[in-house]
Amino acid sequence: MQSSQQLDSITQSLKKEFKSQSEDVKNCIENCLNCHKACEQLISYCLQKGGKHADRKHIELLLCCADICRTSAHFMMWNSDLHSRVCQVCAEVCLKCAVDCEQMSEDATMKACAELCRVCVESCQSMSRHTHH
Amino acid sequence: MQSSQQLDSITQSLKKEFKSQSEDVKNCIENCLNCHKACEQLISYCLQKGGKHADRKHIELLLCCADICRTSAHFMMWNSDLHSRVCQVCAEVCLKCAVDCEQMSEDATMKACAELCRVCVESCQSMSRHTHH
Amino acid sequence: MQSSQQLDSITQSLKKEFKSQSEDVKNCIENCLNCHKACEQLISYCLQKGGKHADRKHIELLLCCADICRTSAHFMMWNSDLHSRVCQVCAEVCLKCAVDCEQMSEDATMKACAELCRVCVESCQSMSRHTHH
Amino acid sequence: MQSSQQLDSITQSLKKEFKSQSEDVKNCIENCLNCHKACEQLISYCLQKGGKHADRKHIELLLCCADICRTSAHFMMWNSDLHSRVCQVCAEVCLKCAVDCEQMSEDATMKACAELCRVCVESCQSMSRHTHH
Repeated sequence: MQSSQQLDSITQSLKKEFKSQSEDVKNCIENCLNCHKACEQLISYCLQKGGKHADRKHIELLLCCADICRTSAHFMMWNSDLHSRVCQVCAEVCLKCAVDCEQMSEDATMKACAELCRVCVESCQSMSRHTHH
Repeated sequence: MQSSQQLDSITQSLKKEFKSQSEDVKNCIENCLNCHKACEQLISYCLQKGGKHADRKHIELLLCCADICRTSAHFMMWNSDLHSRVCQVCAEVCLKCAVDCEQMSEDATMKACAELCRVCVESCQSMSRHTHH
Repeated sequence: MQSSQQLDSITQSLKKEFKSQSEDVKNCIENCLNCHKACEQLISYCLQKGGKHADRKHIELLLCCADICRTSAHFMMWNSDLHSRVCQVCAEVCLKCAVDCEQMSEDATMKACAELCRVCVESCQSMSRHTHH
Repeated sequence: MQSSQQLDSITQSLKKEFKSQSEDVKNCIENCLNCHKACEQLISYCLQKGGKHADRKHIELLLCCADICRTSAHFMMWNSDLHSRVCQVCAEVCLKCAVDCEQMSEDATMKACAELCRVCVESCQSMSRHTHH
């Protein structure tokens, strides 16, 4: 069984191998995947909580945010010229999702998810500014 | 075993049930899913053909096009206010993919895929014009 | 604008092009994608209905069913030797989802979804029997 | 801009919030997502390398492995009773992918990906043993 340190070292060394990706792109991929994961997990969490957490509009937004974050990460992984366009829309969706989660930020899980959304917003906005012509 | 006619009748009746979706939205979902499926299938087809079919840039574009088409369909299925923004980017990606496939349109498979991409472009562009504020 | 007949004719001709896939595989891909689409759409529908429709366990099952159906279709599209193994699990998940939807079969939407799940079960089970060694 | 340490601390605190998941499940989700990401990134890398890296069968296997890893993670995130069944198949696919990547293990990128696949195999196998009845 690999220890957690060994795993970190494998993922770090793999990250270094993708030399065609800039540091900004690598970080944006990471931020999108973190946001994707958080939103996917939050769906079950919110459905279980019930009440405003399980509001239809909120669940739909989590689904959409998870989806566009994954697509955005994929466009960067697959070197698409159009990744900045996807990142731009991704930033808009994540911002909406952050604002929605912040309405329930007395709940630490929602607060952490909102923070990951905001990190993704910033990173995708910057990606969109730098590379879109 | 269900016959093909029975199946069509089930999917048609299910389609009618989603009353909150306009006809345009239903057709655009369909067009995105058709394009998604065509691109996913073309990946294997093109890798097998080799040569320019298996060119890295072409495969990456098929992957990206399949991905954004699925996301675009999901945003419409999940009633997102931002679906027109995703459709807009989806139209750009599908157009690029259509043009790329048309370079090999002496091949009937590529030609059919390009046609499905173009149907998706038109439908997503119209979605983007009508509903984006 | 393409008419619906023209579209059908393009998708049919594209289907014929994938000669490496047997008719059974082509139908199973179709059935998985139909089931995938139905489940994805039902998520919003059920959340809106509320009550038992929006029960956490039911929504989670729709999400899982949609997911494995897509993966199952992909394994067939991408010619994986292990597609029969995925189809086997897909049949189990779809069966569970069909039974769950049938609990609410006084609702025509749920009934249609259950029928699409059952078509997928049958088709995936047969795929799993024929090709798994 | 969040520092990398702050980000780690947010994702760690979010991880702790999902109290219904055991440590084993949390680690398996992480391992599946790591493997998913590695395989998705390797597709472009291998297409660029060409030769045996870009062999059709190898690319198809990377696509399938990425796909089932994501589905497997989702089944655990969404608390499916059938997650052990999906983990079982996921372990089989990842093992095949690891063996395939190891054929090119003189290449550090392939070696790192193979290692992530093997970590995922072990973790999914154990998930499949513990929870399947």
